[in-house]
Amino acid sequence: MKAIASLVAAAAAALLALPASAQNFQKPEDAIKYRRGAFSVLGPHFAALGAMVNGRAPFDAKAAARHGEVLAVVSTLPWTAFGPGTDKGDTKAKPEIWTEQAKFKEGADKMQAEMAKLVAATKTGNLDSIKASFGPAAGTCKACHDAYRGS
Amino acid sequence: MKAIASLVAAAAAALLALPASAQNFQKPEDAIKYRRGAFSVLGPHFAALGAMVNGRAPFDAKAAARHGEVLAVVSTLPWTAFGPGTDKGDTKAKPEIWTEQAKFKEGADKMQAEMAKLVAATKTGNLDSIKASFGPAAGTCKACHDAYRGS
Repeated sequence: MKAIASLVAAAAAALLALPASAQNFQKPEDAIKYRRGAFSVLGPHFAALGAMVNGRAPFDAKAAARHGEVLAVVSTLPWTAFGPGTDKGDTKAKPEIWTEQAKFKEGADKMQAEMAKLVAATKTGNLDSIKASFGPAAGTCKACHDAYRGS
Repeated sequence: MKAIASLVAAAAAALLALPASAQNFQKPEDAIKYRRGAFSVLGPHFAALGAMVNGRAPFDAKAAARHGEVLAVVSTLPWTAFGPGTDKGDTKAKPEIWTEQAKFKEGADKMQAEMAKLVAATKTGNLDSIKASFGPAAGTCKACHDAYRGS
């Protein structure tokens, strides 16, 4: 567990080292397209890990680590793209994101923290570690989807 | 240049170490959504680097390195999502992708190779290195867009 803890610490440090804004968007629709894109990439990689966790797919440590690499980068991306003016358009984002910004940010931070733990677990090649961190990470996805994603 | 060459070699080795398929898709539309998502993420990061290269934005070595980290991972993703049956649906992909598969793969490989050089350059913190590798990388984007992306 010590190795995992240091991996988590390294991953968390890497996340904290990121600049607040990865890029500027010319138009609100650019930001919406970008954040939707990031979630569209996250989903299948997270689901592929979930399939291994739930036994619907055989455990493949290399593939799991690869999914972890994608999650590590892409889970940090969408958050800067929820700026002012990006509440209208081709989006399922609920207005509460902008009226409850502190709570939304808290959810986003929690997701990234749990995702960092999952990413660290994927590097161990140990399915039990991945299983232990998958549920909490999935919980952070669901919490935000329930609160902030419309249909 | 020796340091850059070894960074490129390391980046290329990392790319080659990836499994061929990052995930399986249940339905063709899942693959289409995923690959479009990956390109939607790539675009703004590549454009932000381009703005620095062209002097439209001040050079920020940290931000450039961060864009490089995103490109390193996301430039490898869309290619497995052009499988059979994903030529129809919510996509601008031209049928030539599936009738000229070897040529399409060659373009995708070239893009990833030039992107790896650009990623290596972003790690040097040297704008001239980034400038030198940005053009060839942009050329590989354009070549495929011209040949294989409809409107």
